[in-house]
Amino acid sequence: MKITILGGGGFLGRKLAARLAQDGALGGKPITELTLFDLAAPAPLATPFPLRCLGGDVADPAAVAAAIPPGTEVVFHLAAVVSAAAEADYDLGMKVNLQGTLAVLAACRALGTKPRVIFTSSVASFGGGQDAVVPDDGRQVPTNSYGAQKAIGELLLQDASRKGFLDAVSIRLPTVMVRPGRPNKAASSFVSAVVREPLLGLSTDCPVPPEFAVWICSPRSTMEWFLHAATMDTTPLGADRGINPPGRSATIAKMLEALETVAGKAAREKVGFAFDREIYDIVVGWPAAFAATRARRFGFVEQESLEELVQAFIEDDLAATKADRGL
Amino acid sequence: MKITILGGGGFLGRKLAARLAQDGALGGKPITELTLFDLAAPAPLATPFPLRCLGGDVADPAAVAAAIPPGTEVVFHLAAVVSAAAEADYDLGMKVNLQGTLAVLAACRALGTKPRVIFTSSVASFGGGQDAVVPDDGRQVPTNSYGAQKAIGELLLQDASRKGFLDAVSIRLPTVMVRPGRPNKAASSFVSAVVREPLLGLSTDCPVPPEFAVWICSPRSTMEWFLHAATMDTTPLGADRGINPPGRSATIAKMLEALETVAGKAAREKVGFAFDREIYDIVVGWPAAFAATRARRFGFVEQESLEELVQAFIEDDLAATKADRGL
Repeated sequence: MKITILGGGGFLGRKLAARLAQDGALGGKPITELTLFDLAAPAPLATPFPLRCLGGDVADPAAVAAAIPPGTEVVFHLAAVVSAAAEADYDLGMKVNLQGTLAVLAACRALGTKPRVIFTSSVASFGGGQDAVVPDDGRQVPTNSYGAQKAIGELLLQDASRKGFLDAVSIRLPTVMVRPGRPNKAASSFVSAVVREPLLGLSTDCPVPPEFAVWICSPRSTMEWFLHAATMDTTPLGADRGINPPGRSATIAKMLEALETVAGKAAREKVGFAFDREIYDIVVGWPAAFAATRARRFGFVEQESLEELVQAFIEDDLAATKADRGL
Repeated sequence: MKITILGGGGFLGRKLAARLAQDGALGGKPITELTLFDLAAPAPLATPFPLRCLGGDVADPAAVAAAIPPGTEVVFHLAAVVSAAAEADYDLGMKVNLQGTLAVLAACRALGTKPRVIFTSSVASFGGGQDAVVPDDGRQVPTNSYGAQKAIGELLLQDASRKGFLDAVSIRLPTVMVRPGRPNKAASSFVSAVVREPLLGLSTDCPVPPEFAVWICSPRSTMEWFLHAATMDTTPLGADRGINPPGRSATIAKMLEALETVAGKAAREKVGFAFDREIYDIVVGWPAAFAATRARRFGFVEQESLEELVQAFIEDDLAATKADRGL
């Protein structure tokens, strides 16, 4: 089985590649080739099967076609300009997030073999806010360009599935925590920072109050959802290829409780609160909870507990993050 | 005030141009120039203001930019490849309905003056079927490429409105009846034919049973909605620029009752029933009713009665249709 990861150099793409390398197979079928594609060619990793690492622009149809060779059975389309960047540079977001997805559609269609496409859509494609519990048939009224482009990508891939050009599952990812690396300019940066920074021995200020709730998931759950989406029977999905996966609605206070349970009182005390109106005004529009009934019925596993999520970051990413940041 | 009608050569575009010519003004402001744009340059009509009739491809950014000159305050974007054609030729539908709308967005944005854009979306952007009463926040899960492309157009124009590039109102048109002209290959052709053909003295077979319901509107209501969308205050719409206008849910039986009331028993008896599985299977997926609460709150006028609708066709279009068809 040939597999392609578009956005294979990113945080989730690398984790997915490592997982595929470890498993050597997907859905019981041996992997015969893996292509990692990103703006800069991703660094190679050890794999028990041939690996291609390609650099290129996802909005360039020829580059994308080269990344999806004949015989490709599964394409993970994670390539995107994320929310803050797509908001700051509208044309860049449209190019990567819209024209990029059109290029992926065209390349998959050209294969003529209806590959499975796993598309990372986002909670940012919804409005709603703190009080929302988004139902499975909740309407996407995005309040940011990234979310609009993701909702458009879903419609494109859904219709292409109906036409038989490909076979898509769009997973509307919650805010993934704990992200390794550094705090960044993403409005949601604090969601990971309130756990990661204390575990690195660093202080951090949370820009929203403790009772603020976020719809979150872990990198581990994300990997399980990706693999399930790649191997599930899509027939019961019918026309609707969008999945709200069973993440977890968690307040900052609950995250800090989990941090204390796993890492002690001293870790928790590294987190202060410094209200930031600008950040608050952005994130307050994101829905904090989803029903996710349909995803559970279709076999998407439940997000683990916050304590397990914190423990998993320590096991999977803490050492590398420390090394990265010279700590 | 400069106005552009994209799709100005079509059935609704011509009616709109005639209405603007008659009114000479829009929202109390005199019209200073009208541009009609279509694949073939629309035939001129008598107007009390300068008229430009341009031919070109709506997917060609330069052609669209020429059709939307500096100072344009209102753009009616009616240009589209309709449902059956977009389904038969996917690439043509994507070109006209997606790349075309992108070209309109770019041309309006380039003006830098935030023109009002009235976009004709469609009931075809929804699934649901005969039992559905689509709420105002109903999710669009299109089951045809035309509907998907319309839903995508809405997302594009909604986000462009939020960004301040333009100021869009997307009207999800019901099935418009009574269309002049001839029966055609559109799956919904029968909705107009069951009234139009008898009024022309011709027999017709209806492919769905009498109890089959359709969400319909008249050309007259459509014009009122267009003019209202062009002049309304869009601030209260917030992020959501999509409008489900107050059409009417009507069964074929009710349409025939109205026909008999207006035109007599002999007219009604021209309509037979010949079940057509292929047509039925397409149209049975369309929602037959909408709540349309929001549109009423925002001042979109109610669809007139079926009797008035039949009478309006006789007054507005019957003579021209007879002439057209050599009857």
